[in-house]
Amino acid sequence: MIETPYLLFLGDAPDPLAAKVAQGIKDWRPENAVGQFRMAGCKADLGLKDLTLAEGKEAGARTLVIGVANRGGVISQAWKDVLIEALQMGFDLASGLHNLLANEGDLVAASQVSGSTLHDVRVPNVQYPIADGTKRAGKRVLAVGTDCSVGKMYTALALDEAMRARGMNSTFRATGQTGILITGSGVPLDAVVADFMAGAVEYLTPANDPDHWDIIEGQGSLFHVSYSGVTLALIHGGQPDALILCHEPTREHMRGLPGYKLPTLEAVRDMALTLAQVANPACKVVGISINTQHLSEADAKSYLAEVEARLGLPAVDPYREGAARLAEALAEL
Amino acid sequence: MIETPYLLFLGDAPDPLAAKVAQGIKDWRPENAVGQFRMAGCKADLGLKDLTLAEGKEAGARTLVIGVANRGGVISQAWKDVLIEALQMGFDLASGLHNLLANEGDLVAASQVSGSTLHDVRVPNVQYPIADGTKRAGKRVLAVGTDCSVGKMYTALALDEAMRARGMNSTFRATGQTGILITGSGVPLDAVVADFMAGAVEYLTPANDPDHWDIIEGQGSLFHVSYSGVTLALIHGGQPDALILCHEPTREHMRGLPGYKLPTLEAVRDMALTLAQVANPACKVVGISINTQHLSEADAKSYLAEVEARLGLPAVDPYREGAARLAEALAEL
Repeated sequence: MIETPYLLFLGDAPDPLAAKVAQGIKDWRPENAVGQFRMAGCKADLGLKDLTLAEGKEAGARTLVIGVANRGGVISQAWKDVLIEALQMGFDLASGLHNLLANEGDLVAASQVSGSTLHDVRVPNVQYPIADGTKRAGKRVLAVGTDCSVGKMYTALALDEAMRARGMNSTFRATGQTGILITGSGVPLDAVVADFMAGAVEYLTPANDPDHWDIIEGQGSLFHVSYSGVTLALIHGGQPDALILCHEPTREHMRGLPGYKLPTLEAVRDMALTLAQVANPACKVVGISINTQHLSEADAKSYLAEVEARLGLPAVDPYREGAARLAEALAEL
Repeated sequence: MIETPYLLFLGDAPDPLAAKVAQGIKDWRPENAVGQFRMAGCKADLGLKDLTLAEGKEAGARTLVIGVANRGGVISQAWKDVLIEALQMGFDLASGLHNLLANEGDLVAASQVSGSTLHDVRVPNVQYPIADGTKRAGKRVLAVGTDCSVGKMYTALALDEAMRARGMNSTFRATGQTGILITGSGVPLDAVVADFMAGAVEYLTPANDPDHWDIIEGQGSLFHVSYSGVTLALIHGGQPDALILCHEPTREHMRGLPGYKLPTLEAVRDMALTLAQVANPACKVVGISINTQHLSEADAKSYLAEVEARLGLPAVDPYREGAARLAEALAEL
């Protein structure tokens, strides 16, 4: 559990895209961010107040979150100077970088002096159990994709927003580092040891009130040969009551696998549902989320209509129109 | 790679079952074992020559393999005395125990003095790659089960034996600690970090001669909610040309999951084949291996005949009759 609110460290981001973790926090949990901290040459700007460390502290920030990718796989001395000063002022640090804070001797030393915590969200800090498959109270919905990086996290966060707007009782459950930084907790599933993957998902989505929905962030795809095992652990550990299919219609091959075509939505529906019903025979596919960012407004509209007619399920682009219709489908379940 | 041949350490095994790892080595790779080492009170006997450490050394043994489960989760002082003496004599040690040799300070110290290697086969010692899904030369067969512990390793080892007997070019590829100790190498797949599971299977089964078969040891089951992700990584990382279905017909529920019935062989066939064809569209299900240990001879015979007729595939119990018919099915592929 990362303590909120945050001050968002944008460092010397070379462009806005490098700060996409910070952007995600600002978009989805603006109440978690008191402001942004930018260094000389920073090319990203979230439109939040620029604060010094002292001002951030005064505004109540508990954690300095590294919301930007680093360059060249090293944590530079310029960053270090800021991070050490933050630790000395009593901030915790949180990071999803490949280079772990815990491997930087000077940061560890400073954190020990101040009693601050270093959160490396790529690395599990819990000994997860082996899944026992017991049916848990409460409801769960999982986003499953035709491919990696088609918008599963975005869909889940938009769904959470739409469900809250309807007054439904829901919690977004993060399974990757960006989601964990946005919400302050979760399981970095791709870094969990194989035998404990499904157990980690059970741990993440425990028994809850009968009307409560866990919205589980998806990972990978059953049809992506590099990561499919992670996806199946989500399906079996999450024992979802509902699945949302996610797709990006302009992709020519599976991400990182030039020899692999994307499966059809129908193939993903049938495969994911059959496997989900092993853990939860009542599971249903309730809707479709299409990432239409590479289509024109008109093409997006007609593609969504075509998919909706073909599969007989509400099909939306949550970025263009929100996820209200998906929330409605869940409410009717 | 564990250096062979071995001296098999049976310790103070309370019963023969406790020494099942050593039994597996003796059954499947007798040429790897120069003899057995038993302590006072040992209730297991492989029928191998009882050797002292010095005699084992003289007979050419390079590694003392702990072929027995320990009691109560600790490595006792009585064991330690033997293990340290073995290290001092220049033996390597190999173990699949949950307690790691590498966590025992006195064993580590002794190994450093003698320059011996400690092999903890439950723990990966390789940084596996992320799977890239590229089609590899050579052929691969994978055992997939209706459940865990239905005889997948046994089937794979029996198949390896039968294929060699036919003069086929094959290699058993271990994916669990017992298989690794039997053959001296492999990947402890259940201990690999999620993102690298399929890559570890690619690493284990690299490109090979066009007529060479990798016989990949299966793990878990697509229908076992605790471990299904590991099974799918085997299917996608292994890109098998052929699948063998494995089943134990008297089991009343999935292993460790009282609320879960076993799937039918047909359900496993359809699900495993559909998923396997993502990585290898030419994959076929070629045979069925039934563990009939809890059936009478007559019941086993009629059950095998019934399954063979129902699925239209050779169905054998490799323990009762060997795996020659499965090897034949592969040869005809």
